[in-house]
Amino acid sequence: IGAAALAQTDRYEMPADVAGTARALADTALDSDLAWDIVESLTTEVGPRLAGTPQEARARDWAVAKMEELGFENVRVEEFPLDLWTRGRSIYEEVAIVSPYPQPLYATSLGGAAPTPEGGLEAELVFFDSFDDLLAFDGAEDALRGKLVFVNDRMVASRTGEGYGWANRKRRQAWLEAENRGAAGVLIRSVGTSSHRFAHTGMMSFPEERMPEIPALAVSAPDADQIERIHHSGETITLRLRTHAGWRGEVVSGNVIGEIPGRETPEEIVVIGGHLDSWDLGTGALDDGAGVAITMAAAHLIDQLPENPRRTIRVVLFGAEEVGLVGARAYANARLADGTIEDHVIGSESDFGAREVWKFSSNVGPEALPVMDAMAREMAFLGIIRGDNESGGGPDMIPLQYMGVPMAALEQNGEDYFNFHHTPDDTLDKIDPGELAQNVAAWAMFVWMAAELPVDFRAGEDEAEAGDAAR
Amino acid sequence: IGAAALAQTDRYEMPADVAGTARALADTALDSDLAWDIVESLTTEVGPRLAGTPQEARARDWAVAKMEELGFENVRVEEFPLDLWTRGRSIYEEVAIVSPYPQPLYATSLGGAAPTPEGGLEAELVFFDSFDDLLAFDGAEDALRGKLVFVNDRMVASRTGEGYGWANRKRRQAWLEAENRGAAGVLIRSVGTSSHRFAHTGMMSFPEERMPEIPALAVSAPDADQIERIHHSGETITLRLRTHAGWRGEVVSGNVIGEIPGRETPEEIVVIGGHLDSWDLGTGALDDGAGVAITMAAAHLIDQLPENPRRTIRVVLFGAEEVGLVGARAYANARLADGTIEDHVIGSESDFGAREVWKFSSNVGPEALPVMDAMAREMAFLGIIRGDNESGGGPDMIPLQYMGVPMAALEQNGEDYFNFHHTPDDTLDKIDPGELAQNVAAWAMFVWMAAELPVDFRAGEDEAEAGDAAR
Ligand SMILES: [Zn+2]
Ligand SMILES: [Zn+2]
Ligand SMILES: [Zn+2]
Ligand SMILES: [Zn+2]
Repeated sequence: IGAAALAQTDRYEMPADVAGTARALADTALDSDLAWDIVESLTTEVGPRLAGTPQEARARDWAVAKMEELGFENVRVEEFPLDLWTRGRSIYEEVAIVSPYPQPLYATSLGGAAPTPEGGLEAELVFFDSFDDLLAFDGAEDALRGKLVFVNDRMVASRTGEGYGWANRKRRQAWLEAENRGAAGVLIRSVGTSSHRFAHTGMMSFPEERMPEIPALAVSAPDADQIERIHHSGETITLRLRTHAGWRGEVVSGNVIGEIPGRETPEEIVVIGGHLDSWDLGTGALDDGAGVAITMAAAHLIDQLPENPRRTIRVVLFGAEEVGLVGARAYANARLADGTIEDHVIGSESDFGAREVWKFSSNVGPEALPVMDAMAREMAFLGIIRGDNESGGGPDMIPLQYMGVPMAALEQNGEDYFNFHHTPDDTLDKIDPGELAQNVAAWAMFVWMAAELPVDFRAGEDEAEAGDAAR
Repeated sequence: IGAAALAQTDRYEMPADVAGTARALADTALDSDLAWDIVESLTTEVGPRLAGTPQEARARDWAVAKMEELGFENVRVEEFPLDLWTRGRSIYEEVAIVSPYPQPLYATSLGGAAPTPEGGLEAELVFFDSFDDLLAFDGAEDALRGKLVFVNDRMVASRTGEGYGWANRKRRQAWLEAENRGAAGVLIRSVGTSSHRFAHTGMMSFPEERMPEIPALAVSAPDADQIERIHHSGETITLRLRTHAGWRGEVVSGNVIGEIPGRETPEEIVVIGGHLDSWDLGTGALDDGAGVAITMAAAHLIDQLPENPRRTIRVVLFGAEEVGLVGARAYANARLADGTIEDHVIGSESDFGAREVWKFSSNVGPEALPVMDAMAREMAFLGIIRGDNESGGGPDMIPLQYMGVPMAALEQNGEDYFNFHHTPDDTLDKIDPGELAQNVAAWAMFVWMAAELPVDFRAGEDEAEAGDAAR
């Protein structure tokens, strides 16, 4: 649905009392430290919280306590099983150039990677300018046998972060291309846009449940530059790796849920949240302590109103997002099982850092479009423009959206998000308290309006089918 | 000597031919990639080069080959003995909070530190806001016994880098204050101004040759923030350390020397250079690959003139700077021994990164001041102002200056130098090729004028005595 279609829709006038309360919530949010206090508490008192580890369990305990302290109702944990992968002995993994110019490199295993043999692995590097070059590689059958495949694509930074998906292809799939060609391991230039000496971790993809049998690592951008320079000088490069990454068996993860019950139609749910797990290298401040804090704070500010909105606001802090949306799928499947999927009137997750919200996008039925436009007009004073109606609602909303739940997106400025994301450098100091408060203001406004207005955000019968066809 | 005194000096007019050649050298330098090529080669083909290690020996081999390739004459290595200290098994050292909130920290041993016991060390942290607080600590006699002293001072960033000395007091001396009070170890907030998750290494001081018997580490700024937050919450903090740092016995280091012989008074020496060693965590691009490259390139450009300047230009690439100016002292003592100290007409080192030169300072006799002022006027088009006459000439010039050699300083903009310095992040990509070329232009101009003008930069008899008294 493009701009022309939007222009044809009717104008909806936000009721003055709803608009007035929205504005008052925003003013309160802009003066509030609550989100900062929450993300400070999570990143300090829990710190890194890799899915399935005792640290993630501590994060659930933290979340339950924090929700109860803030007055959320029906606070509960929904557990689910998880296959645990960890880096092994240490967050530090040993990677070095052995020849021609011996020196250590800064690198990190990708999620799901196998370990090296116990004593380490030494092999020659084969350089690919891009993942597409690896895909197209048709050298001699044993050209990569026993070698270390290196893939050098660079990610493009942008406000929308749209360079991430393209750059991530190598992270997700290079292991399979390398292993299928007999390689002993695979290394990639880090996804992400950091110029600092941090490697960018993240999960790989496992088509048809096949798991890698080779080590797979990302090296920092300055180290990838070094490999690139040596390669272009014509020298043969030999690396040495020693890693202990691997799968550790089935453990327990879980989602933490809390609610602000609706005053008129409590069965109707506006579902928001962030993910509680983080990668192990940083303290998960931007990804996704910020989203946890923003959505909890927004819901709490609404709970401070004289009376609750019509509908229930449900905050879900998802577990095990980083390792494959495991908590999101568990949540959606549980709602399918208990028959409450249809009660989810709209959903949205905050999971793109802590810079300012600049665009309000949606994925709702055409009859609700004028309402979304009106919401955007109310939020304009925060520096927010109206986006299109083709958005998702954040990674943990994907299973719900697939099941037909309408979505909204409070899009953040992501131009430097990937300088920190999934690296040791994702720490509290990277959050600007003023920008964080602007997020809470936007979220409080949206969530209030979505929970108070008796609007059906769902597509009509025809549109729902069209939506299915488009997926 | 302040501005008033400078204003009283006579004006010296730079001879037109000398000025013209200086300007032509600068124009050539601004268009030249030579310095970039040199620092790229050093940081790629050698990489990290800790004093006394095989990597530093490879750097000497590289320097000899590069000087010969560039047509330097009298290329030679002057070896000297060195006590070797290394980090031990890996550049990664294990430091973690054990309680109240278990999580790994990013930290690095300081140069000269002892290792932990083989199995590691677990102890309670005692927090000091500042090094001055530790100095003044008069708690119970056993208040620090068996504890880990933590010192939290922050460094102030500035164009001149003058915050470094003050901040460095804790790096140099905190171990002694802690050990004297029975502490089991000492940790400091990293010296340096990086907001990233890098610890800042560097040598400690050893008064009266006493060596630390306790581990001593720096933690990154975000990790120091974490410790500070937990401390201020009132919780007791326990850390676990496991390091393998230590002294490894006597080895060989060396200075590499090459010359552009003077055409009229070759015994007179303009001595310039940088240091060849680096810390082990980065590839030593800013510290001090840049200084090596800038001074070699400047000398080479002068060597391309139709005829050499009157005096000899000597480029000294010092070994073992980082670990206590060991190469600088060996060089100066050797010149004292061979009687050529008096032949060093002026000296200067480039060792403050690769940002633009913005100030030309000096430490010369009053009769030479008008000449230094005239040099500054010639360099003004590069954006360089005249500084005072009280400067040093760079760390490796300290012993020569102490022996009476006049000094000049081409001062670089250091406002972000300590974001990278002595961390893993000191890599080639942090150098701007345009700013590097501006350095070469300034150096070529200064070195040419100092080597061509038959000026005595030394103080007269009276002034030399005054200088001695001031030291
Ligand atoms: Zn995330
Ligand atoms: Zn993530
Ligand atoms: Zn230096
Ligand atoms: Zn240094």
